[in-house]
Amino acid sequence: MTTRFIPKSEFDRIRAAQLKTDQLLPLVAKMCRLNTLFEVKRAGSGHLGSSYSAMDIVVFLYHHYMNVKNIGWDNPDRDIYYSSKGHDVPGQYAVLYSLGIVPEEKFLKLRRLGGLDGHPDLKIPGIEANTGSLGMGISKGRGIAFGKKYRGRKGRVIVMTGDGELQEGQNFEALQSTVQQGCSNLTVVVDHNKLQSDRYIDRIVSLGDLEAKFKAFGWAVARANGHDYAAIAKVFADFEKITDKPKVCIFDTIKGRGVSFMEHPRALQENNGFYRWHAGAPDDASYQKAYLELWESIKADFASLNLGHLEMREPEAIAKGLSKVSDEFVAVAYGKTLVELAKSNKDFVILDADLSLDCKLREFEDSYPERFIECGIAEQDMVSMAAGIALQGLVPVCNSFANFLAARTNEQIYNLLSEGKKVVFACHYAGLIPAGPGKSHQSIRDISLFSAFPNVTVLQAANSIEMDMITRYAISEAKESVMIRLVIGPSPQVIQLPSSYQFTFGRGVALTEGSENVLFTYGSVMLNEALNAEAILREKGKNLRVINMPWLNRFDKEWLQTELRGVKNCFVLEDHAPRGGLGDRLMATLNELDVLKGMEFDVMGVEGFPACGTPLEALKFHKLDAESVAERVLARIGGAKASHLRAV
Amino acid sequence: MTTRFIPKSEFDRIRAAQLKTDQLLPLVAKMCRLNTLFEVKRAGSGHLGSSYSAMDIVVFLYHHYMNVKNIGWDNPDRDIYYSSKGHDVPGQYAVLYSLGIVPEEKFLKLRRLGGLDGHPDLKIPGIEANTGSLGMGISKGRGIAFGKKYRGRKGRVIVMTGDGELQEGQNFEALQSTVQQGCSNLTVVVDHNKLQSDRYIDRIVSLGDLEAKFKAFGWAVARANGHDYAAIAKVFADFEKITDKPKVCIFDTIKGRGVSFMEHPRALQENNGFYRWHAGAPDDASYQKAYLELWESIKADFASLNLGHLEMREPEAIAKGLSKVSDEFVAVAYGKTLVELAKSNKDFVILDADLSLDCKLREFEDSYPERFIECGIAEQDMVSMAAGIALQGLVPVCNSFANFLAARTNEQIYNLLSEGKKVVFACHYAGLIPAGPGKSHQSIRDISLFSAFPNVTVLQAANSIEMDMITRYAISEAKESVMIRLVIGPSPQVIQLPSSYQFTFGRGVALTEGSENVLFTYGSVMLNEALNAEAILREKGKNLRVINMPWLNRFDKEWLQTELRGVKNCFVLEDHAPRGGLGDRLMATLNELDVLKGMEFDVMGVEGFPACGTPLEALKFHKLDAESVAERVLARIGGAKASHLRAV
Repeated sequence: MTTRFIPKSEFDRIRAAQLKTDQLLPLVAKMCRLNTLFEVKRAGSGHLGSSYSAMDIVVFLYHHYMNVKNIGWDNPDRDIYYSSKGHDVPGQYAVLYSLGIVPEEKFLKLRRLGGLDGHPDLKIPGIEANTGSLGMGISKGRGIAFGKKYRGRKGRVIVMTGDGELQEGQNFEALQSTVQQGCSNLTVVVDHNKLQSDRYIDRIVSLGDLEAKFKAFGWAVARANGHDYAAIAKVFADFEKITDKPKVCIFDTIKGRGVSFMEHPRALQENNGFYRWHAGAPDDASYQKAYLELWESIKADFASLNLGHLEMREPEAIAKGLSKVSDEFVAVAYGKTLVELAKSNKDFVILDADLSLDCKLREFEDSYPERFIECGIAEQDMVSMAAGIALQGLVPVCNSFANFLAARTNEQIYNLLSEGKKVVFACHYAGLIPAGPGKSHQSIRDISLFSAFPNVTVLQAANSIEMDMITRYAISEAKESVMIRLVIGPSPQVIQLPSSYQFTFGRGVALTEGSENVLFTYGSVMLNEALNAEAILREKGKNLRVINMPWLNRFDKEWLQTELRGVKNCFVLEDHAPRGGLGDRLMATLNELDVLKGMEFDVMGVEGFPACGTPLEALKFHKLDAESVAERVLARIGGAKASHLRAV
Repeated sequence: MTTRFIPKSEFDRIRAAQLKTDQLLPLVAKMCRLNTLFEVKRAGSGHLGSSYSAMDIVVFLYHHYMNVKNIGWDNPDRDIYYSSKGHDVPGQYAVLYSLGIVPEEKFLKLRRLGGLDGHPDLKIPGIEANTGSLGMGISKGRGIAFGKKYRGRKGRVIVMTGDGELQEGQNFEALQSTVQQGCSNLTVVVDHNKLQSDRYIDRIVSLGDLEAKFKAFGWAVARANGHDYAAIAKVFADFEKITDKPKVCIFDTIKGRGVSFMEHPRALQENNGFYRWHAGAPDDASYQKAYLELWESIKADFASLNLGHLEMREPEAIAKGLSKVSDEFVAVAYGKTLVELAKSNKDFVILDADLSLDCKLREFEDSYPERFIECGIAEQDMVSMAAGIALQGLVPVCNSFANFLAARTNEQIYNLLSEGKKVVFACHYAGLIPAGPGKSHQSIRDISLFSAFPNVTVLQAANSIEMDMITRYAISEAKESVMIRLVIGPSPQVIQLPSSYQFTFGRGVALTEGSENVLFTYGSVMLNEALNAEAILREKGKNLRVINMPWLNRFDKEWLQTELRGVKNCFVLEDHAPRGGLGDRLMATLNELDVLKGMEFDVMGVEGFPACGTPLEALKFHKLDAESVAERVLARIGGAKASHLRAV
């Protein structure tokens, strides 16, 4: 399907046309909305809903209010704006493109390697801070304001937050310190669109009287319509006069604003109460409908303002760069098993941090509402609540994305584990893939974070069948706490385990044959690469025994010793950093078993920060795709040293 | 010096004497205050100030309000109380002892192995939750309340928080969710003593209008004098009538209440504005003074209430169990270097999370107030603020205890590191020792947490001289971010480095000689054990080359190869868990260098959760004291396998 966008030259033209501000800004916003639609459709993913709710404020800031358009982006006295929520960045990119800050070659590559990251990243022109993990923005803004003051630099600091994002407790830490430190050069704007993910905030965790909260924390508070440019301008003008305290404006906005069927409440009414346009690209028909609505509205403005012909550009289609995928989602099996298990096991409950759709918990939520606990975007609170539940003899199952659960709640997990009760942590979105959302979401430290605790088993399933086994084991059988890693995307291929396979403590299972060369890996993404690498090697007459190893930090030592008898080259392919993963734990165990001396041991993992792009782009970038893996194995078993040795 | 306490029999006697409640409870509280003084003086450390401010509320709850004294501690319908701040636990232990819940043999062993942990731990009778890391209590209480409801159990849930503790953002996550989830069986009591550590809260980060905050979050709010039993009783009676929302009472209290010179404001006036009695045992003279004041007051009550003779007991003195220590504090050198460096380097600033005294930052704070940023007990906010400061081209130096900094802010650190600017993290209180405060404070995962990031160097100094070198390197020279580990206690001995020693990238330095057997370790605590182990081995005619290795995850590979030529046994002694520390990183590097095959490699570290006790008790418990280390080395180099092989 072809997609079209409005080239920068058209923005230049209308900016030169000496329109009134109240004519120019709404038109620019409409044009940027169309370009955002283009970006997201072309990328195949991205966040439209909040790009649209925030758009009018962002256009006001960049096209009218901030000094960057005059003094430039390298000037230390420049005004600084960024979005703390970060997922509204396709909209921000569209605005930055309209001003020529983001160059066209990048604008055509949302969520592609070398293009525009799925969440804000400093390497992109115009982006002032890395965001995407929620709740950090106000703290960071205060740091920028401090740095400006310390350096004697001018320029205002403006931070946008989401409203659901305000559930994160760090915001309140930041609110109190900003007042205490007398930091008045910080303005927060809340994109209060009333929805988080696909439901109303009040349904998840209500913000209550938000104005009263901000006031109780000592901030100057304003409230205005975030789609009314005069109202927006008045807020900022009023704020200029307040120099003794930090300022926050709650902008009432509409998620999906600008495309009628993406706006709430209509969008929810038309979809059984759920908001469809939070994340992901619209299907072709919806795209077409949205495109036409925006395009006609823009054309009407061009006509009424005598702006002449609206030039559109249709770029070459971009290679999808997607690996072939199956229709298996391993996490779906997890969700199904939870529902099934709940029938006979009354002793576990599910906790969620506003990701129930992504974590495949909706069926459980609907079937067992009394055993489903929604904590909102407040992972620390969720984990400590789980601790209390465990103290009452139940098994709590905490769900979130791996990055948020393993890292943000790390001390809460330590506290809980020190109490010795069993808790299950379901770390969704573990590993490198999908790589489109960028490094705030790609999780490559979770195994090391959980393996650092003395009493947690870390597991990952190869396919849906093993996922079911692991879920049952974790909840009903395991004696200690369990962390389950889950791939969030579809399985590239459905991994076939032997029909006789039984899930057994500390043991993996060989999927291919090979006597001297063994490769351990786990999870559907890397098993796929490993099996494809094995096929490449087989064609070259080399054998590689690929072992699916669901146990990432607990091993049956006898099995290991038997399995590795006669092995000369042992490889570990990590869907994780090369430090702290299965490789480190295996190496230590093989050293203890005294079998390490007889073999070469080589760990491949995600070096550095994970790359943003399509799955194949990211895998290739990190040399973890099948061809790179085969090449590295070949270099090693052929006797030559591989060129990309493990860094320390 | 001898110390005396009031035996449980005296509490039994006055409880049987049919006193009126308003006579009994204040007297019990005084007696418990005396016993708390005893505990802390005997232990040599502990928190008196907030044990005393909370005491009247705790006595009211256990001796009057809660059902546990009637239905017993194993009854699932029991009321549950715990303190979220946790450091007031010596006072709680005294109350639990007065009721016979904590047995006398444990009561005599505060902060000793097998006795009473420095912060609450479930294994101690009467303790309902592990606490000590701040801000988790309300969330956990909600979990307990949920569990009770789900299980159909009776019993109220009451959580005490500190006031400084309310700076932690997690509290606000918990407040919002408790209302959303309709959890009305949760009562929070705030011990609002107005001080945090050694200064007024308003001086650190003001709580502002605390009542307004709680109300804005939808809670039922009361306020009362926390030392007035009638007022306390009225609050709880009123709360019984509120069944539709969670309840919080802000109890105005006095830190040090009950001992005149420990009460604020007097205590601050007499000590240059600082509160001396937050942590640590009083000196002998102060102890004597406090003891007499309490004892005379209690005696007077006994006389006026016709309770007869007050029996006191004087237990045998407890062996101090302290290793010999020097007067060197490595962190003092860190603080001095910061002050010195600041004269010539204007480009770094210091951030603190209410631990400036412990982190030896006071001189910097006084000398460079414009470069010292106090963030309060809000580590996440501190780290994200540092990110913003780094974006303005400064080097922020974040300070807190290792457990709080490495774990609680893990995701904020990841976000910041992904921006590629340099930040220094000073992780104080790293390692196993001191072991008195217990596992909430002992940090044995910080190396693994920081080594999991791709761009942080982790360093630890052997002595003050190396500390100075490391501090200068981190702030002025290092190209990437640096984490500095610091021992918080005194050095057991001052480690002597060769006079020619130069701090060089990736290199350690041998402190003793030995050709075949090498032991790598770091920091003053484990270097002391290693050197003592070496002396033991030397007496047995065995040589061990002890290498001080300040670089915990960055190595000069050429140096390593040279250093390990001819080595048959390589040991690593970790002041850390055996997973994820120097050992793992060294092993991976030696594997890469292909020198691992020629040697035995053995890592000793802190297995399981760190034990509470004196330094020697904890070291022996974990088999990391000199004798255990020597024994393990001997078992290995003598050819026999050591008995305590590394677990996985």
